[in-house]
Formats: sequence, structure tokens, C-alpha cells
Amino acid sequence: MEKLKSVKVIAFDADDTLWVNEPYFRVAEQQFCELMAEFMPAEKVNKELYKIEMQNMELYGYGAKAFTLSLVEAALKFSNGKVAQEKIERILSIGRYILDHPVELLDDVKELLDKLKGCYRLLVVTKGDLLEQERKLVKSGLVSYFDHIEIFSDKKEDNYKRLFDYLDIRPDEFLMVGNSLKSDILPVVSLGGKGVYVPFHTTWLHEVVEVEPSLKFYELGRVGQLAQLLDISE
Amino acid sequence: MEKLKSVKVIAFDADDTLWVNEPYFRVAEQQFCELMAEFMPAEKVNKELYKIEMQNMELYGYGAKAFTLSLVEAALKFSNGKVAQEKIERILSIGRYILDHPVELLDDVKELLDKLKGCYRLLVVTKGDLLEQERKLVKSGLVSYFDHIEIFSDKKEDNYKRLFDYLDIRPDEFLMVGNSLKSDILPVVSLGGKGVYVPFHTTWLHEVVEVEPSLKFYELGRVGQLAQLLDISE
Repeated sequence: MEKLKSVKVIAFDADDTLWVNEPYFRVAEQQFCELMAEFMPAEKVNKELYKIEMQNMELYGYGAKAFTLSLVEAALKFSNGKVAQEKIERILSIGRYILDHPVELLDDVKELLDKLKGCYRLLVVTKGDLLEQERKLVKSGLVSYFDHIEIFSDKKEDNYKRLFDYLDIRPDEFLMVGNSLKSDILPVVSLGGKGVYVPFHTTWLHEVVEVEPSLKFYELGRVGQLAQLLDISE
Repeated sequence: MEKLKSVKVIAFDADDTLWVNEPYFRVAEQQFCELMAEFMPAEKVNKELYKIEMQNMELYGYGAKAFTLSLVEAALKFSNGKVAQEKIERILSIGRYILDHPVELLDDVKELLDKLKGCYRLLVVTKGDLLEQERKLVKSGLVSYFDHIEIFSDKKEDNYKRLFDYLDIRPDEFLMVGNSLKSDILPVVSLGGKGVYVPFHTTWLHEVVEVEPSLKFYELGRVGQLAQLLDISE
């Protein structure tokens, strides 16, 4: 893999790249649909909830607190102000569970990091709520593998540009590994960095994007295969 | 001021040091007390709300989204599940206003930064919600004054230690300016850094702390007086 020889820094997205995240939101949405069943069919609830989340994105940003506030707003709206107060309480509990569940690492993550540690500067580059992401990282037990942890409010080209400056590296020395073409791959590759896309079985609609066929990036079925891609043996 | 000669980096807290923040929360609490008046006297509402906020602190952290979620929880609890749905809607609006109001700079902030710029590395070091703090900073129009912006999930000694490492400076080269003895002054001075305390007329109970009389820090009535303390003329 000649083209990856320039890489000095490997940055990992966190949610659904290092550990399971999106399925917790999907389960929460199902529970919310059940709470709303008396007012609206599930399919419409999902669609309208997504609209509310997108309207709130600029103000609330990503993460479980933003999601919970959108659920409360949606419940009031979908029920025309008639939702039972106990259901609002239930929504708060659903949000709390997303914030507080144990962190489940994806397969091979620890083994991969063991192989990479010492060969590359390793980073976590994630977006979302600062406290939520810090908490998950601590719970994951992975903190000691990483030289630097960067939490952006959003993963746009500008954020990555500032990160390259901070790391004092050229873009082609930077490899980003993640499950979102939109957030992890597109902005990095556009800047001249390398992208390794590792799709996760569940992707939030907001992260779905069409990619130009000319965009050059690698795709792996499992994050553990990165060691082979980089030609690293044990 | 011989003792400040070693200072190379001046870091400013943001909320209630550079701009007005706490009064928006106080107004929101008053509005919440009015909404709860049919269930509980204002004094008790304030006290019980504070308890709920503290219980939620570890999970929710700081900021307006955390505050709004605590208000919803409090409304359900204080009313024994009887709060009208319109009042929950009203609570969401109160939270939105805290997130979205214009940023009011405190007196002399711009003039002070004009004087300091070029003489020191200038930082913003604040805690709380990443997106909320970034948004306020952009709205403040102050971004270009600062060499680095650091947003912690909490302002503990460890956070400041990592910042000194990142900046590659000794603690005595670091001066922190802020309105919270607990978050801005105590941890920095304990590490050997310098603290300039600029009290604001309103302090959240959570930030109130008793200080050892032996703790050495400076205190100013207004942030603009920092230029004199550092002996900088125009």
C-alpha cells in the first residue's frame, strides 16, 4: 500500500467506529413511536421527528441532550398538547439511558490499537457533545491509546484544517477512519488527506450523502482490517 | 507588579468575564417560578430546582440544554405530574432563548483586548457545552483576538495541567482571568499559575466556594483594570 506510506497520524471517529452508538438512538426512536402510537403512525412519527431534529440542529447540535429536547418538543406537537405527563417523564428516562448506557466496543478495536500504538500518532476525532463524548471515551477504557482527543462541534473542512495546523502536519500525513462518508471521509479527502471508510450497519439519515465516483478513499468491512491495509503484522 | 513579569499567556474565562451570562439563567428561573406558582412557592422552587440540577450535573453537565432538561424534570416533579402541557412548551422556549439571545460584551473588554493583543498569547478558557460556547464566541465578535480557544467539560486542575502541556509553558507563565474563584482561580493558583479574580454581580450558587486566606491571587473591580495591573499603557 504505497499510497499510505506518508501517513503519520491515524485519527479514529468514535461513535460506530470504535463503539456502538446509533442503535441506541434507533431503539429510543422505536420507544418514542410506541409512546406516540395513539396520536400518529410510527412511520410519520419518524419522519416528523427527523424534521424537528434538523430544525433544531443549529441551536441544539448533536448528542443525547439535543435529541431528548427534540423528543419532548415532538411529543407536544404530535399530540397537539395532549400527551400525558407520564409520557414526558418516560422521554426524559429514554434520554438518560442514551447518556448512561455501558460502552460496547466494536470487534477487534483493542487488538487493532495494540498493533498501531507506537507506529503512529493515534487520535480520536469526534463530533458532538463534549461531556457525552468524554464520558464514553473514559468508559471505553481506550484513553491511554490516544495521543490526542479532539471533539469538534461539527466535522467540516475548517475543523480538520485547524487540526492539521495544530498537529503541524501536511494533509497527506493524516488518515481518518470512520463510518460517516459525510463527516469522516469527504472533508478529509477534499483537503488532501486519506480516508478509510468502515460502514456500520446503522447510519443516521443526517449522515447519509452521495459521493462523487472520483473521490478516492479506502473501504473496509471491519475496522480490524486496517492493520492489513497498513501492512502491519503483530 | 514584579510578580506578573513571568506571564506569557493570558487566559480569559468567557461567561460573566467577557460577556453577560448568569443573569439570563436568573431571569429564566424567575419565569419558571411563575409557571410553578400554582404548585409551590418561589423560594422552594429555586431550592428544589438547584437540587435537581446538582443531581443531573454528572450526567448532563453545564449549559442551557442541561438546564432546560432539568426544568422539564422539575416541572413534572413539583406539579406531581399535573403541570399543563403548555407550560412544558413554555419551558422549551425559555431554554431556547438562553441559547439564542444576543451576546452582550462586558464594559471595556474590547479596549482591554486591543491593549493586550501582541504583548501576550491570548486564550479563552471556558467550560460547558461546546456548541453553545463556540456560538457565543462567534457572536461576540472577539474570535480574532485569541490565539487559542479551549473549552473544557469542567475546569479542574487536571484540565489546566493538560493545557499547560499543550501550550508548552510553565504554570507561572499562565495568568487566568475569571469571575469564579472555584473554576478560574483556585485550580490555577494551586498549580503555581497566576489568578486575577474579577467578581461579577451574579454568581451561580454552584460556583460559590470558601477560599483559604493564604491563597494568593489578584482581585479587580472591572476586567478593564487588568491593563493597569500589567502596567500596560495604550
